[in-house]
Amino acid sequence: MNIGNKRWVIPDVYIPAASTGESRELISHDAICILNCNTQDAHIEITLYFSDREPAGPYRFIVEALRTRHLRFNEFTDPAPVPHNTDYASVIESDAPIIVQHTRLDSRQSALALMTTMAYPA
Amino acid sequence: MNIGNKRWVIPDVYIPAASTGESRELISHDAICILNCNTQDAHIEITLYFSDREPAGPYRFIVEALRTRHLRFNEFTDPAPVPHNTDYASVIESDAPIIVQHTRLDSRQSALALMTTMAYPA
Amino acid sequence: MNIGNKRWVIPDVYIPAASTGESRELISHDAICILNCNTQDAHIEITLYFSDREPAGPYRFIVEALRTRHLRFNEFTDPAPVPHNTDYASVIESDAPIIVQHTRLDSRQSALALMTTMAYPA
Amino acid sequence: MNIGNKRWVIPDVYIPAASTGESRELISHDAICILNCNTQDAHIEITLYFSDREPAGPYRFIVEALRTRHLRFNEFTDPAPVPHNTDYASVIESDAPIIVQHTRLDSRQSALALMTTMAYPA
Repeated sequence: MNIGNKRWVIPDVYIPAASTGESRELISHDAICILNCNTQDAHIEITLYFSDREPAGPYRFIVEALRTRHLRFNEFTDPAPVPHNTDYASVIESDAPIIVQHTRLDSRQSALALMTTMAYPA
Repeated sequence: MNIGNKRWVIPDVYIPAASTGESRELISHDAICILNCNTQDAHIEITLYFSDREPAGPYRFIVEALRTRHLRFNEFTDPAPVPHNTDYASVIESDAPIIVQHTRLDSRQSALALMTTMAYPA
Repeated sequence: MNIGNKRWVIPDVYIPAASTGESRELISHDAICILNCNTQDAHIEITLYFSDREPAGPYRFIVEALRTRHLRFNEFTDPAPVPHNTDYASVIESDAPIIVQHTRLDSRQSALALMTTMAYPA
Repeated sequence: MNIGNKRWVIPDVYIPAASTGESRELISHDAICILNCNTQDAHIEITLYFSDREPAGPYRFIVEALRTRHLRFNEFTDPAPVPHNTDYASVIESDAPIIVQHTRLDSRQSALALMTTMAYPA
């Protein structure tokens, strides 16, 4: 299925600075969940926008054909780690159509909170 | 009303591996809520996409004319149960227009968390 | 501003059967938040769809010109109250363009949960 | 990138009247997160709509080229502060294309809740 869009936007990216959970599942995180329904691999470039400095990136990933990848901003390392407790935004570009959903898990307090939305296809 | 779309995508599907609630209402779950406003039944096929293996499915359901069904991935059995604590994605296809919303209830910690979004009409 | 859409769909409506909060603000509820940016009043009709019986309604409301109304399903009374702990769905129709957002507050456990999405413009 | 839309709508704006957190990060708030991917600054005007009185505003902000801003309604001051525990709605207008996401953090009870959605491009 050749479905989806080649560019997606998430204006509200934020990595909470603390967690009450200790396992990877319960660490506070902001994730972008990407589905590639095509029969060719998708080469992804992610750019981060900040409130007070130049954009950073691109962060590069591959999502193979007929696969999904759930990426977490707090695990990005190249070209640079992503700061915690900072407001930023994100643009995801791909050479093949993909579908992108944005999900945050925040476990700073004694019970986790979740939020999700489809990213904006631009 | 002949409204909706015949294909919908949810990139972020995930079934939390634990729950603090005991009743069915409070068990951690990922649900797809489907509305069929048409006067004919909708025959639904759901395909699951994973990060590291071939897609699974189709899972087949009927949503009758003028009815809604709220399906939970953790209750799927045919052709195979859906693994917990695993990242996957989902494509919902129907022979009649439907509308699909994705909702997760996560009760792993001491108070439940909720998230929801409209699925992506593809 | 003559903006918005005359029909909106919410497939996942559900009123939790219990609450830990006692004030109206903290009672578990499912709300539809409607904005009418037009200079004429909007006459709204809401129909509810169930999993196992005929649709109910219409529930009628007016959203005045240049006003917002945040309606809660658990406060609907005419033509009939809405059952709790039941899966249903909702279609909102208006004679003037409106914008509709769906928000649930669930306070069954010891800390509230929230979820929201824009309704689907059909 | 000249992407986005010049008008966005958020029907469900609400500032919870209390918080359990004490830091700015954990104060209950409703935020609009704006991304400006363009190479020109975006001049933003926000109008608030209420259930029982005339609209208020405009609240004016600038989002510089290639920057994001995460604004909180409870920090608005000019032309007037925004009341807490009141139902309202919001229209965001810009002279350059932007992308807008709406996020609420509610820490009234002992663990915070989150919700988010893309605003409606009108």
